[in-house]
Amino acid sequence: VTAAGGPARRSPVRWDGTAIEIVDQARLPATLEYLRLETVDAAVDAIRRLAVRGAPAIGGCGALAMVLGIDSALSNETDLSLPEAREIVAALAGRIVMARPTAVNLSWAVRRVAGAAAGAGSIADIHELALAEALRVIEEDREACRRIGEIGRAELAGRSTLLTHCNTGWLATLGWGTALGIVYAKAAAGEPVHVFACEARPLLQGARLTAWELIDAGIDVTLVADGAAAPLLASGRIDAVVVGADRIVANGDVANKIGTLGIAIAARRSGVPFYVVAPTSSFDPTLATGEGIVIEERPADEVRTWQGRLAAPAGVNVWNPAFDVTPAELVTAYITEVGVLHPPFDDLPTAPSPHEAARESAASL
Amino acid sequence: VTAAGGPARRSPVRWDGTAIEIVDQARLPATLEYLRLETVDAAVDAIRRLAVRGAPAIGGCGALAMVLGIDSALSNETDLSLPEAREIVAALAGRIVMARPTAVNLSWAVRRVAGAAAGAGSIADIHELALAEALRVIEEDREACRRIGEIGRAELAGRSTLLTHCNTGWLATLGWGTALGIVYAKAAAGEPVHVFACEARPLLQGARLTAWELIDAGIDVTLVADGAAAPLLASGRIDAVVVGADRIVANGDVANKIGTLGIAIAARRSGVPFYVVAPTSSFDPTLATGEGIVIEERPADEVRTWQGRLAAPAGVNVWNPAFDVTPAELVTAYITEVGVLHPPFDDLPTAPSPHEAARESAASL
Repeated sequence: VTAAGGPARRSPVRWDGTAIEIVDQARLPATLEYLRLETVDAAVDAIRRLAVRGAPAIGGCGALAMVLGIDSALSNETDLSLPEAREIVAALAGRIVMARPTAVNLSWAVRRVAGAAAGAGSIADIHELALAEALRVIEEDREACRRIGEIGRAELAGRSTLLTHCNTGWLATLGWGTALGIVYAKAAAGEPVHVFACEARPLLQGARLTAWELIDAGIDVTLVADGAAAPLLASGRIDAVVVGADRIVANGDVANKIGTLGIAIAARRSGVPFYVVAPTSSFDPTLATGEGIVIEERPADEVRTWQGRLAAPAGVNVWNPAFDVTPAELVTAYITEVGVLHPPFDDLPTAPSPHEAARESAASL
Repeated sequence: VTAAGGPARRSPVRWDGTAIEIVDQARLPATLEYLRLETVDAAVDAIRRLAVRGAPAIGGCGALAMVLGIDSALSNETDLSLPEAREIVAALAGRIVMARPTAVNLSWAVRRVAGAAAGAGSIADIHELALAEALRVIEEDREACRRIGEIGRAELAGRSTLLTHCNTGWLATLGWGTALGIVYAKAAAGEPVHVFACEARPLLQGARLTAWELIDAGIDVTLVADGAAAPLLASGRIDAVVVGADRIVANGDVANKIGTLGIAIAARRSGVPFYVVAPTSSFDPTLATGEGIVIEERPADEVRTWQGRLAAPAGVNVWNPAFDVTPAELVTAYITEVGVLHPPFDDLPTAPSPHEAARESAASL
């Protein structure tokens, strides 16, 4: 299956009526193809091995995985009580949330679907309510991306040369992107924009995905090794840094792709503004500071190898955190779909956090 | 040919009587083998494509390339005058120096051999004097490494966990290394030492070479992606950063492998001492500040690919500087074979710079 249309019309995660379709990101930049995920196990595995990645996209995939799981667990069970069915849904939520611990959007989206399902008056309603909520999560993220792009375009007016890290475009979200959404918004408005993209070792999402997305959209992009970010910032050529987020906590500390902290420190030294660009679903007000964020450590072979080819002694020790935490003091501002924010984030909804509830479901299993 | 013995006895560049032997670094970490270079062209090509790398090792290879060139140009020429022969030697020096512009050791070593040859009273003496000087350059670097290791061991007493970048061990020098020489000296003295090694994209010298060297020597090493350096430094686990240098100018600004600047900035923020470790042959007093350093830009495919495998869209623009410049203010001290230095480097020999002379030879061609 080959997708058509610009970045605003594409999605790495979509519902085909009975299964999840995801972009097979392992085949990029060579070809753009979709894979079908027909079971919860397949969806959890796709999230865990990063076939689906990017905090908002993981959220969307998790929401649809809830639908798959509900279909499979409840569709042929005629003698289940409603409380029993609710327990199955809660257990399912916990199982999906544990696929990746750092991106808060996953627990947020899964909890939304679980919450909608919990409102069902009959077992037959559970599926319908869950599917409707999952599709709403996806539609809302699409709209959030659009608004982030416009709000970011206003905030970064006149700043045409941007440095970014990892991938935050349509391949990482359910719309046209977060940090790259600003780039797409600038391009759509006919404004000049040139992106420097860090390659983002170990998994090279910048090289494989961001460079591909931008070339595909006809936008100027220059790829650099991660180590080149500091001298690039020192050179005066960069007007602003824009990155995404996997989790933003109450004081503004940000978990994002490994390498983000070094870029933020170098940007500060060079006087270049550093923006975190994310939907409000990436905010986690239940944690006071970044110290509380669980940082996922990934397999050593991601660093030992390069596209499956060994680049280091086979048994060498590796420290491979997937994320780092950038302290709030290095962040110029947070660009979201509700505006340009600064901590404390009083503009965010203050309802009891769905993340906490989802974590509790997970912990209770 | 397989080398034997510990790091103190090995060399990536050696003279076998008629040709240069170099470690085939492209085959590491899989196997350790030597290649023979029998012509100046082969030696220049080896330097240019980084088959020989590391500032001191490049210097040694350049010195021996002078010997190969002199042999080839003068050995069968019986009707050359001495001034004609000297002109040939000067042209040869210029040609070799241009193989890589940033590492100052190359011009320094080549100029030493050219200078020794210029003192010959007959054409027959030229070869002998050049060979003797080239071997002296190599022996002096071996001794400089040994002294750097001991001086560094004293300076870093009690600091056992070190972060390093790229490769500065026996594969990069003519002795046991510069920054890694300190590690080897600590290990040889029975002191605890644990190295965190950045992989050093794009060419992964940290993964391919440093990790291999340290495992081979029985020293604890943990490999990290370059982007993990900043959070590692912030974690408090690193006692000091030790890196090499390709050129250190009069005010202390340092050109070194791309990625060094970002590590230095992050180390300063985390209060971790940052040491530059290099022989005095890496100092270039003819340049006042780092702004004057020519930064070599390398082919785009080094970033787009690894071992021939594409990780980015084939035609994507790339900015691939081989080096960056770390300002002196971020450097705690410079560990050399003549002691622990701080700018201005009054302890260095103040004789007219050989680099300048070599550059002039090159420019006159």
